[in-house]
Amino acid sequence: MQKRNAFYAQSGGVTAVINATACGVIQTARKHKDRIGKVYAGRNGIIGALTEDLIDTSRETSRAIAALMHTPAGAFGSCRYQLASFDKNPAQYERLLEVFRAHDIGYFFYNGGNDSADTCLKVSQISARLGYPIAAVHVPKTVDNDLPITDCCPGFGSVAKYVAVSMREAAFDVASMAKTSTRVFVLEVMGRHAGWITAAIGLADDAETPIPLVLLFPEIAFDEARFLAVVDAKVKKFGYCCIGVSEGLKNADGALMAEAGSKDAFGHAQLGGVGPMIATLVKDRLGHKYHWAVADYLQRAARHLASKTDVEHAYAVGKSAVLLALAGNNAVMPAIVRTSDKPYRWKIGVAPLDKVANVEKMLPRNYISADGYGITARARAYLSPLVRGEDFPPFKDGLPQYVRLKNAAVPKKLAAAFKI
Amino acid sequence: MQKRNAFYAQSGGVTAVINATACGVIQTARKHKDRIGKVYAGRNGIIGALTEDLIDTSRETSRAIAALMHTPAGAFGSCRYQLASFDKNPAQYERLLEVFRAHDIGYFFYNGGNDSADTCLKVSQISARLGYPIAAVHVPKTVDNDLPITDCCPGFGSVAKYVAVSMREAAFDVASMAKTSTRVFVLEVMGRHAGWITAAIGLADDAETPIPLVLLFPEIAFDEARFLAVVDAKVKKFGYCCIGVSEGLKNADGALMAEAGSKDAFGHAQLGGVGPMIATLVKDRLGHKYHWAVADYLQRAARHLASKTDVEHAYAVGKSAVLLALAGNNAVMPAIVRTSDKPYRWKIGVAPLDKVANVEKMLPRNYISADGYGITARARAYLSPLVRGEDFPPFKDGLPQYVRLKNAAVPKKLAAAFKI
Repeated sequence: MQKRNAFYAQSGGVTAVINATACGVIQTARKHKDRIGKVYAGRNGIIGALTEDLIDTSRETSRAIAALMHTPAGAFGSCRYQLASFDKNPAQYERLLEVFRAHDIGYFFYNGGNDSADTCLKVSQISARLGYPIAAVHVPKTVDNDLPITDCCPGFGSVAKYVAVSMREAAFDVASMAKTSTRVFVLEVMGRHAGWITAAIGLADDAETPIPLVLLFPEIAFDEARFLAVVDAKVKKFGYCCIGVSEGLKNADGALMAEAGSKDAFGHAQLGGVGPMIATLVKDRLGHKYHWAVADYLQRAARHLASKTDVEHAYAVGKSAVLLALAGNNAVMPAIVRTSDKPYRWKIGVAPLDKVANVEKMLPRNYISADGYGITARARAYLSPLVRGEDFPPFKDGLPQYVRLKNAAVPKKLAAAFKI
Repeated sequence: MQKRNAFYAQSGGVTAVINATACGVIQTARKHKDRIGKVYAGRNGIIGALTEDLIDTSRETSRAIAALMHTPAGAFGSCRYQLASFDKNPAQYERLLEVFRAHDIGYFFYNGGNDSADTCLKVSQISARLGYPIAAVHVPKTVDNDLPITDCCPGFGSVAKYVAVSMREAAFDVASMAKTSTRVFVLEVMGRHAGWITAAIGLADDAETPIPLVLLFPEIAFDEARFLAVVDAKVKKFGYCCIGVSEGLKNADGALMAEAGSKDAFGHAQLGGVGPMIATLVKDRLGHKYHWAVADYLQRAARHLASKTDVEHAYAVGKSAVLLALAGNNAVMPAIVRTSDKPYRWKIGVAPLDKVANVEKMLPRNYISADGYGITARARAYLSPLVRGEDFPPFKDGLPQYVRLKNAAVPKKLAAAFKI
């Protein structure tokens, strides 16, 4: 077999563990120098390929690459940029091909979520449509946990752990204050379409540490009167109540709550945030003093609290992507296959990319409790293994030491620039 | 010396390490059984004393008390409730005295911030004014870090660590996304009057991990035009910018930028919302895509990321409070005395309570950079030791195991109830 270079890129919203996947790709490629020459990373994802802005990862030390295991976010830069279809914009694909040919790229590893799976699928078609041999492998990553076939998505487990831990800690705080002050705490979390992250908040509450929790899922239309009654009952019974709300909460008409009302009780337009909106509603209608938090990027960047299971998944899909490509696969994605809940066991399987691209896996209704405000035992059995284990980064002077790579550019070979 | 019981209460906003102080008080009292009978904790702070709602901590196992070291928030409940002056409401003090006498309480340990120091001082005066012998010792605690005399306040170091780590992690995320998406990230943090917590965000940026950071301190009046120019320059130079903003940011007239309208029991305005406000301003005026987070209780409850130094301080002031009382002190507070920056060394000193109560220690101007948007080397030398060291709690199934005490009530001895 001919030795060829590999292209790796990070796409879409980044996670606490996407660099662990990069580490898996690069370390595994380095172990197969007979087949894979250099790993070139796209600076800012696929844009780096289109603009011939490639990063030479061979210039990074083994130590720096190893440090990716504990460094959050995208070490090579990511992007939100989706390729058009081949028929709509063939020039894009011809450009990609030109860049790949100039740098002898025979392997394409694309690390992302739903949109990225679609991009990767399109790139895989270059092989057949333009007669250029390339192995395109999608590497799963998304905090939203909404990719099909794979049991879970690297990035999700760490967010799940973060929101569960944060809610548990905040609940202890609110319980302390409830006698004379805050009685209701609202935590807004990510997950615009699917309520996986919202469900993970439910892990904060367990048999040893019960917490009066109300979850607002994007899958369940918001019913103000029912919600207020549930919250008030919990405050009356327990003295306080903690509310976890998805940024994607919708009203009965299917409109996003955050967009439905553009002004909140502060009288400020465009404050945004369904979290403060829910908190204000509780205050206005029930009179309970509230606090609210919007975790935003903190939840998906929190490598300091990553799930060890998630880190292991993330590395494994990177490693497997390379092995799949070396075995001659194209248009596939390594998938996490759960073989047992208790004890938790998993292995890597293979998913055909056309079954992954643009398919969203929603939270099953039987993961949500009958009243719509909590999680079921089934959800707990699914979620619990994913947050398990700690994998603290090294700390120096009290702060985690995250690596910044040199990210040296590969000299350009093409005369023409490409405008994205 | 006569053997008498002790009263301990938690007051005001709780922290990630106030229970470590409780642990210090209780463990030290248990070592002096010849002098101290039982430690009674006030259920929900001083309210527990007024309503004779006392918790018998002797009913808790050594193991449960030890677990307070790693459990955030107030294990006995806190409150926002300030005693009036003796002359305005003598009935309150007579009631306290009645409860203390009924339960033979000779030691009063009050664990709180500014307002609480004032309460403790008032209680200490019972001794002289009503002829009841009691040793009242204030035990410092406040995430705001604004108590005078003590070099720092237990609770602050852990919040400082949390906001610095969170900003560093979010900055890595934003840097990854900035090419095609988010360019400005805003993190709103606590600190109503003093910018200590805002300053701590500055630790996210250091020589090894530079981050384009703009800090908005409550001490520096917000100047919209200057602020926008600084942010825009950073985005142009670095591709992105991270903004840390105090909830207490004020405009040129000294008015809070974000007022929620409601006030707490001390008459303080309830804050929230300046983060999204600043983010929206950046978007409207500069056109940069933004994200914002409001950490709220997450920052002060985050025991999972506590500073080891802070935990040690918290325990030490609890232990020292008991020793000070046993040595016959009244109306004092154990204070943390820094004897060296490098290496960091500290010891416990004694502060007279009348020099502590109602005095706020503001962030010195020379801790803020000349342009008003960053911290100086001096601030860094002060802050850095306070976030140092990790002290992770035990985890089980991926979540920290925090203790909930039995909190068994001491049988009431008084016929009359007391309405607070």
